[in-house]
Amino acid sequence: MTPAAASPTALPPAAEQVTRERELTRRVIASFADCENPRLRQVLESLVEHLHAFVRDVRLTEEEWTAAIEFLRRSGDITNDARQEFILLSDVLGVSMQTITVSNEAYGDATEATVFGPFFVEGSPEIPIGGDIASDANGTPCWVEGIVTDTDGNPVPGARIEVWEADDDGMYDVQYEDGRTFGRAHLYSDEQGRYSFWAVTPTPYPIPHDGPVGQLLQAVGRSPYRASHLHFMVQREGFRRLVTHIFVRGDELIETDSVFGVRESLIKDFTRNEAGTPTPDGRAIDGPWEQTRFDIVLPPAGA
Amino acid sequence: MTPAAASPTALPPAAEQVTRERELTRRVIASFADCENPRLRQVLESLVEHLHAFVRDVRLTEEEWTAAIEFLRRSGDITNDARQEFILLSDVLGVSMQTITVSNEAYGDATEATVFGPFFVEGSPEIPIGGDIASDANGTPCWVEGIVTDTDGNPVPGARIEVWEADDDGMYDVQYEDGRTFGRAHLYSDEQGRYSFWAVTPTPYPIPHDGPVGQLLQAVGRSPYRASHLHFMVQREGFRRLVTHIFVRGDELIETDSVFGVRESLIKDFTRNEAGTPTPDGRAIDGPWEQTRFDIVLPPAGA
Repeated sequence: MTPAAASPTALPPAAEQVTRERELTRRVIASFADCENPRLRQVLESLVEHLHAFVRDVRLTEEEWTAAIEFLRRSGDITNDARQEFILLSDVLGVSMQTITVSNEAYGDATEATVFGPFFVEGSPEIPIGGDIASDANGTPCWVEGIVTDTDGNPVPGARIEVWEADDDGMYDVQYEDGRTFGRAHLYSDEQGRYSFWAVTPTPYPIPHDGPVGQLLQAVGRSPYRASHLHFMVQREGFRRLVTHIFVRGDELIETDSVFGVRESLIKDFTRNEAGTPTPDGRAIDGPWEQTRFDIVLPPAGA
Repeated sequence: MTPAAASPTALPPAAEQVTRERELTRRVIASFADCENPRLRQVLESLVEHLHAFVRDVRLTEEEWTAAIEFLRRSGDITNDARQEFILLSDVLGVSMQTITVSNEAYGDATEATVFGPFFVEGSPEIPIGGDIASDANGTPCWVEGIVTDTDGNPVPGARIEVWEADDDGMYDVQYEDGRTFGRAHLYSDEQGRYSFWAVTPTPYPIPHDGPVGQLLQAVGRSPYRASHLHFMVQREGFRRLVTHIFVRGDELIETDSVFGVRESLIKDFTRNEAGTPTPDGRAIDGPWEQTRFDIVLPPAGA
């Protein structure tokens, strides 16, 4: 394959070197020719093409390769049922968010998707419209309301709306070890597509950063903090499932969200009301409360 | 960042979608702007560029992303002090060999490098020229000889030549659990740059394939077998260190070596001699023996 290397009349090194690098990539890609699963073959061929291009572009050294292998080993070591360092790695490199982006293509003014995150739990309590998802979560009470429509503006009744969030200490219920449930529930939009509930105003928290990914963030001068957010998952037969967050306008972490989950269209005004201000549903609250609005537009299934 | 998505006068989805994907990659790359290590910044920026391009090119689905994360988790689970699944993964995707290729650039007719492999051990026994590296290894005796020169053809005396290989059962000494040493030694080239030793003719063996990487190879219809080879590491002050193998011409695994380590220039003729044929050094051998020649050309240090 590289006869010039064995000959005294070798090509100039630059040309011979380019040939060797390209030829290697070609051989690796050809090795998948007998794969009977065409999609697996396509994914692996593209992965090899791009990984090899990365190695060539940066002229990766053997020492750097060894450091990368060691990084992956340590990531495996810290991973267990409650901690997934490879997801964190994908998140902080924006690979998770890029996957979400290509898997939820733009469609008219459909609401944008963002990362799912590791804190969703099946079997949340159902609440009525106007109910409270916060339960025992501490934080500032926050009224959330909006309407679910299709991309033509027609109301979507009966949409299942799952909501989950951390408390004012930046902890989800599942991060406490006493089995408590708070800050998660589901409800259904009404005949006019409307929904509303009480939650707590979201606050920032860091992703787990005591492992290799945290060390990587530190080495590049990045914060492990996520911008404050409230998770939504909205499902209705005939529509594409929407997994997203809303963010708090003015949150200083908007620009540096550690997993790149923020979309401009998902940043919402959270209005503060002083103690004593009447609430939308007449609920009595000691102290200030906030409110926000999130209108949800669902694209059709298969869009 | 994507105002069109929140507006009823949205751009056509295709254009808006492209904008979202490119903008995300731009934001992730910008997140490394404060990294104080310029090389780390360069490597991460390129890695993100290529990984995102991969996700976009194949339109990676969320299910496929989840499968990839699970593959990495299982690779971490099987990795321990004696087994490194991430190295195997790098090997079978040709990433290890591409790293070797860019780290050992073509230089005149300098001997080509190939993968180091996991079976090198420090502190091998020293043998004289004409000595035997095989020790207790079973296999066909094989006489190996050659000359070490620089890229101008001048002999390189005193080069330290490390050699290691598996036995006829495809096992290296360290894979047996009884502490035995065989099939590894080092010697020095003489004043004319010459060297020679007895070994055993190399035979094929599979990389460890009872884990996720083995399952991947099976899924794509590839063999875990490496082509038969004999490892060399050649070092001399003032020259670039050479890590390479020689391969056996006619070995049917040459074309499908599982780690892409074969280079045409490294395939050597192994000549078979019937029982009773006199040996180069007068050694008495019961049965047939083989012989091969490997001339080694070292580029200057820093080349």
